[in-house]
Amino acid sequence: MSLLADLLSPLFDRRYASAETRDNRPMRDLAHDLLTSRGEVSGMALARQILDRYASMEDENKRTFLEYLGRELDLDPDAVQVALETYRGDPSRRNYVTLMSASEPPRQELFRRLNQVPGATGKLVAMRADLIRFADGDPALARVESDLKHLFKSWFNRGFLVLRPMNWESPAHILEKITRYEAVHAIHSWEDLRRRLQPEDRRCFGFFHPVMPDEPLIFVQVALTKGIPGSIQGLLAEERENLPVGEADTAVFYSISNCQAGLAGISFGNSLIKQVVEDLSRDLPQLKTFVTLSPIPGLMAWMRSVGLESHMSNPETLGPLAGHYLLNAKDKSGRPLDPVARFHLNNGALVHAIHAKGDLSPNGIAQSGGAMVNYLYDLKRISRNHEDFANNKKVVAAKDVQNLARTPLPETQDSPADAGT
Amino acid sequence: MSLLADLLSPLFDRRYASAETRDNRPMRDLAHDLLTSRGEVSGMALARQILDRYASMEDENKRTFLEYLGRELDLDPDAVQVALETYRGDPSRRNYVTLMSASEPPRQELFRRLNQVPGATGKLVAMRADLIRFADGDPALARVESDLKHLFKSWFNRGFLVLRPMNWESPAHILEKITRYEAVHAIHSWEDLRRRLQPEDRRCFGFFHPVMPDEPLIFVQVALTKGIPGSIQGLLAEERENLPVGEADTAVFYSISNCQAGLAGISFGNSLIKQVVEDLSRDLPQLKTFVTLSPIPGLMAWMRSVGLESHMSNPETLGPLAGHYLLNAKDKSGRPLDPVARFHLNNGALVHAIHAKGDLSPNGIAQSGGAMVNYLYDLKRISRNHEDFANNKKVVAAKDVQNLARTPLPETQDSPADAGT
Amino acid sequence: MSLLADLLSPLFDRRYASAETRDNRPMRDLAHDLLTSRGEVSGMALARQILDRYASMEDENKRTFLEYLGRELDLDPDAVQVALETYRGDPSRRNYVTLMSASEPPRQELFRRLNQVPGATGKLVAMRADLIRFADGDPALARVESDLKHLFKSWFNRGFLVLRPMNWESPAHILEKITRYEAVHAIHSWEDLRRRLQPEDRRCFGFFHPVMPDEPLIFVQVALTKGIPGSIQGLLAEERENLPVGEADTAVFYSISNCQAGLAGISFGNSLIKQVVEDLSRDLPQLKTFVTLSPIPGLMAWMRSVGLESHMSNPETLGPLAGHYLLNAKDKSGRPLDPVARFHLNNGALVHAIHAKGDLSPNGIAQSGGAMVNYLYDLKRISRNHEDFANNKKVVAAKDVQNLARTPLPETQDSPADAGT
Amino acid sequence: MSLLADLLSPLFDRRYASAETRDNRPMRDLAHDLLTSRGEVSGMALARQILDRYASMEDENKRTFLEYLGRELDLDPDAVQVALETYRGDPSRRNYVTLMSASEPPRQELFRRLNQVPGATGKLVAMRADLIRFADGDPALARVESDLKHLFKSWFNRGFLVLRPMNWESPAHILEKITRYEAVHAIHSWEDLRRRLQPEDRRCFGFFHPVMPDEPLIFVQVALTKGIPGSIQGLLAEERENLPVGEADTAVFYSISNCQAGLAGISFGNSLIKQVVEDLSRDLPQLKTFVTLSPIPGLMAWMRSVGLESHMSNPETLGPLAGHYLLNAKDKSGRPLDPVARFHLNNGALVHAIHAKGDLSPNGIAQSGGAMVNYLYDLKRISRNHEDFANNKKVVAAKDVQNLARTPLPETQDSPADAGT
Repeated sequence: MSLLADLLSPLFDRRYASAETRDNRPMRDLAHDLLTSRGEVSGMALARQILDRYASMEDENKRTFLEYLGRELDLDPDAVQVALETYRGDPSRRNYVTLMSASEPPRQELFRRLNQVPGATGKLVAMRADLIRFADGDPALARVESDLKHLFKSWFNRGFLVLRPMNWESPAHILEKITRYEAVHAIHSWEDLRRRLQPEDRRCFGFFHPVMPDEPLIFVQVALTKGIPGSIQGLLAEERENLPVGEADTAVFYSISNCQAGLAGISFGNSLIKQVVEDLSRDLPQLKTFVTLSPIPGLMAWMRSVGLESHMSNPETLGPLAGHYLLNAKDKSGRPLDPVARFHLNNGALVHAIHAKGDLSPNGIAQSGGAMVNYLYDLKRISRNHEDFANNKKVVAAKDVQNLARTPLPETQDSPADAGT
Repeated sequence: MSLLADLLSPLFDRRYASAETRDNRPMRDLAHDLLTSRGEVSGMALARQILDRYASMEDENKRTFLEYLGRELDLDPDAVQVALETYRGDPSRRNYVTLMSASEPPRQELFRRLNQVPGATGKLVAMRADLIRFADGDPALARVESDLKHLFKSWFNRGFLVLRPMNWESPAHILEKITRYEAVHAIHSWEDLRRRLQPEDRRCFGFFHPVMPDEPLIFVQVALTKGIPGSIQGLLAEERENLPVGEADTAVFYSISNCQAGLAGISFGNSLIKQVVEDLSRDLPQLKTFVTLSPIPGLMAWMRSVGLESHMSNPETLGPLAGHYLLNAKDKSGRPLDPVARFHLNNGALVHAIHAKGDLSPNGIAQSGGAMVNYLYDLKRISRNHEDFANNKKVVAAKDVQNLARTPLPETQDSPADAGT
Repeated sequence: MSLLADLLSPLFDRRYASAETRDNRPMRDLAHDLLTSRGEVSGMALARQILDRYASMEDENKRTFLEYLGRELDLDPDAVQVALETYRGDPSRRNYVTLMSASEPPRQELFRRLNQVPGATGKLVAMRADLIRFADGDPALARVESDLKHLFKSWFNRGFLVLRPMNWESPAHILEKITRYEAVHAIHSWEDLRRRLQPEDRRCFGFFHPVMPDEPLIFVQVALTKGIPGSIQGLLAEERENLPVGEADTAVFYSISNCQAGLAGISFGNSLIKQVVEDLSRDLPQLKTFVTLSPIPGLMAWMRSVGLESHMSNPETLGPLAGHYLLNAKDKSGRPLDPVARFHLNNGALVHAIHAKGDLSPNGIAQSGGAMVNYLYDLKRISRNHEDFANNKKVVAAKDVQNLARTPLPETQDSPADAGT
Repeated sequence: MSLLADLLSPLFDRRYASAETRDNRPMRDLAHDLLTSRGEVSGMALARQILDRYASMEDENKRTFLEYLGRELDLDPDAVQVALETYRGDPSRRNYVTLMSASEPPRQELFRRLNQVPGATGKLVAMRADLIRFADGDPALARVESDLKHLFKSWFNRGFLVLRPMNWESPAHILEKITRYEAVHAIHSWEDLRRRLQPEDRRCFGFFHPVMPDEPLIFVQVALTKGIPGSIQGLLAEERENLPVGEADTAVFYSISNCQAGLAGISFGNSLIKQVVEDLSRDLPQLKTFVTLSPIPGLMAWMRSVGLESHMSNPETLGPLAGHYLLNAKDKSGRPLDPVARFHLNNGALVHAIHAKGDLSPNGIAQSGGAMVNYLYDLKRISRNHEDFANNKKVVAAKDVQNLARTPLPETQDSPADAGT
């Protein structure tokens, strides 16, 4: 990472330490200037001031600035209407450009002009994280947030992302972020981190953007194993023996974490998993199976909702109930209730196996009674699975899981809730 | 460059040499698939096929595909109208997103999905170059071209560009492109190129985009000199002696060339010059003056248009006429007729000096009777100059040039044409 | 580092994982083969086997192999004698080469041939560490050890070393080694390490050799301060506030650690300090003073040896006694008793100031009663100081320290020992 | 290369531009100082002055300095004698070190101290090139030359060399050197160079030393072909079609060039070929055959020497004569007369095929009547071949070549010369 940073940073460095005089006018004046012709030439100084001042503000002042973006740099529907009518009359290039321009609120150009200074992209991502916090119930802020999302879909397009392995030779400040961002199975110390990164049967890969070289966008942790594991505690045991890579036949994706709150809703996981599967297949042809070891975060909540609390700590019935939940419990749109299941099924994976005692940590017990699940990525079937799921909402599962899910549900204490079944 | 390429290419390499089976269906079927849910999972293979097949097509087939984009993946004005009305009724986030989505033709999403494969960005840039060739008189193609321009303004935002020096230690395949793209003073051989790049009093800088690491977007050639030069032949003389860098007080921008036809209309020159001025100022604090040695490409054409042909080879009157042309000859919008003048004045430079015998090459004689001009970049005055120019169309010039321009025009053979005066 | 490793490792990688068949003959047979013509062509496989087998041996077997080197691949004095006489008769190139060759034991060629495999240099350094452990009292092993020292003086010549800064962006596996090798003020945790490396007023630099890119040879830790500090606890306090670099006027070398036992006796410290002084001077011209904050490791031992134990915990008399010890206590050759003093004085530094309460850690109290000393590196005087010291054994010291050292010694309990006074 | 240079050059840069005052004393005074204690501390300035002044000297002054090294910093045989006797009496470490030290002339320590400045290694290599020019008939200079050779065997040990591919993406200043150093089949222009480097069925690899990153030590050019070629003109034809790499089964080493006159006698070719064979085998497993297409530089000279001039332009008899020459014509020590044959046979290759019309260039006709030869590197047999050759002087050849060589020699015009037969 830091090499990439080095290479790109000729642009980015202390270059401008050269004292630009601070411009104390209100933020909106600076933003206004940046959008005028002055911004074309002196834009770098203006952009830096706006972003730096914003970054150091309290929430209240941030909100004021964001509301300015939401209300004063908003879309002008009248202008859209006029441009649309002109365009209907003559769909010339000129009229098309006018319409496109009218259809874009002026703050989009502001964002693009802000982005000329080093580090700006990261600061705009942080701005969207603020907007997500603030936007609730305020449509103007929500529109600004939506504009940034649209922009980021373009800027963080798959073609611009760089996949980087992370290991014990990676820069400490990046590894620190792995620890901080790990969202599934917490990393408690540098020693804990080392156990995830240093052994040759452990891998970690992340997506980075060239202008945010020190910030992973998403990363996945992989264990190379012999056979498909069913217990996260077994997989991460301190005293376990490392497996010589040559003996591994399976790659287990046991944790995948998004890192940037400001990039919420921009999906990297699908691409990341596929890229890592391709890379590992090429580098380690002995790997035949690509599988997850995943939590079932909604299982206990669902059991409560259908009156099955009493079965929550019964390993006998947990397997069948988990199968039932994953295959049959659906939301209103007909898709699985469980968010992790939705993610992997939509990627084209299938439900491969259920492990009643997969995660006996307090958190694992709390959310799923300890059950975990393997989703299998079978490259030959991914595309068909995905389409079946996307078009027909079909949940593909292995025979054993189908059988589990067919086990009759135990009687519930209350009337059987039909929520989500 | 090639290091950057190396770093980024983990993504990009022979990775997919793995035989994807060729899909022989019509291009529009592939494009359609890429836009549906199938595209979310199998998009990489589809995108590669579309881009590779497009690249190998004859113009006629290319045009067919581009017309498909222009007509079948076009904006739907009815949908915009409906969404606009809904939004006017309730400007909620959801309605806003619907409107934004309706205001964007579906080909934009196609472009974003195409961009997931290595090399795609360069291929889309080439596609726009085709569109520019084809679009004339065909509004549908012109709209597609305009969409790509809009997209590229976002993707090639200043914040994503990397400034790289180029010199005799740069990769041969990059240097070859410098030779090919040089648009102002042609480079005739590797020896010629070496004279521009190897001496320590010569510099060259270009902007690159991380995903097109072997393709300069724009580059500028700089000579470090003692005093401001007035002759390009003197500057590039084979037998000249190199100046020890410590003795240089002036940096002369003597050539600036855009490289990518498909990025026409996306301005990099202003940023490039300013960046290079900043970098050189920091690295070589002995440099006090930043100036161009520029052609006056429209001078002879203007003299013909105003009936002054007879003065074209008279060095006595050429200076005053050039001054007059640069300061007083305006287009309908009131801006200078000369495109190079417009560029530098809009960047905030001023007209510093005119040299009647600046470029005695056949081309120099043909376009300007041999005259050249220095535009001066005075960092302290750039912002004010630019605003004067942008807002008031004021052309800032040194005293001497103002005096030159005040010299009475010689009588013309015909009646004095007022075109552009 | 790991970039350097990457670049160099095209040579070094899993390349030879390709199964070389294990050769189970005795080590001496392999070594013999490597020295014959077979070694010229199949040397790589032989070298790898020898080094790998050696590395995995118990001490007893290692010693057997090293004794073989010491006794059977030893210098042949008769051959030297014959060659010397021939050379005296006719000092031709041929006779010179014969003499040079006879004067070198055959194990030297063995070492050079062993060094052709990736990682060999590091393994030979480890072999010398073994020899240092074993050699005591065994002249044959001592001669082998001395041969390696001679070889390493050539291989680790200053011109081949690379100075690299280390900071919080350095690879974790390198940082780990910093923690392990720190010999002066122990680093207790990653948080402790971070405090030494991450703040902008802290720097760390090490020498590396290109073929051992993951192994620092020596490193120095530097604090940037305002004024010269007198307390290591103050310098390293957890709660201290970072100093903005622009306000620093002093660079304090507060810890310098050699890392490789097998490179004992090959001096890197002098070059390292000078290089870092030059680099910091250039990058941070505001730095005016380069100084150490050093322990006085021999002070308490000396006080005991001269019967001054009773003054060991008296801060009043500790300063003068430390001054006396540093300036006047000499070994038989007339150089200072204190090894740290010898090192810095020989580098051309001078004794600048003494701090009675400089290091109140248990270790600091134990070795010097808590006293520390600043050695000043004054670039203008280094050369003269060094020569005065090297040629005349003169210890240069600041006025205040000279005065301290002139304070009459307190009476000793016993008769005044003259050891080292 | 230039990346490597970048990484290493933090050490090496303009760092010392800082004006060191020029020391105008005689070179020998500077050298003397560098060897004394002053050299330990101020060595860098002294070393730079000596090397810079030497580099700018005329031959006469260079020779004076080299004679100083040869005569005044020479080995002292008396000191060796004394040390040898002491050592015989007691082979202690101390006495051993004294003997080793006496056996090394003081100029060796001078060379090591000179090597502390950036670029020194390259300058010392150039100094040996001077010595090779000057040494003829002057034993003192010859001894200095031999000392540098000994030193370079240590410094340019295989373990310190870096193999780098060179291609059309390599830095121009490196490619320029390829053109200049190519010793076998001259490269006439950049276009010619491009034909050797750019096509995917052409490769080039060189060894570099980390401190001379811009200077190849040796390089080899490789063509990937289908079958074994017999004509260099065919191989290098301008109009030839590139072979898709996937179809290649053979790698042809058609040119190998040493680059540094000052490294004469230090063998890199054997290691280079083996390394490239290993790398290509791994990266392109479809390659089954590794073979040279080599000149027979001594053929015509030999034919003249044995009175066979009249057959020099007869393609019928050229093949058998070439076979006879390669297999049977020996020097006094019993090894093949032909130097290229000696090189490849000593590497363990075998004589595979002879092509009477292999090189029809003027040079090819002049030295071998147009004949060329393939030497085959069969990894499984290399070691045995080499030993047969090294120990028994056996020339291994394919059946066909053996048969050719058995063809009776035509009658010579004179009596059959026995020179070399």
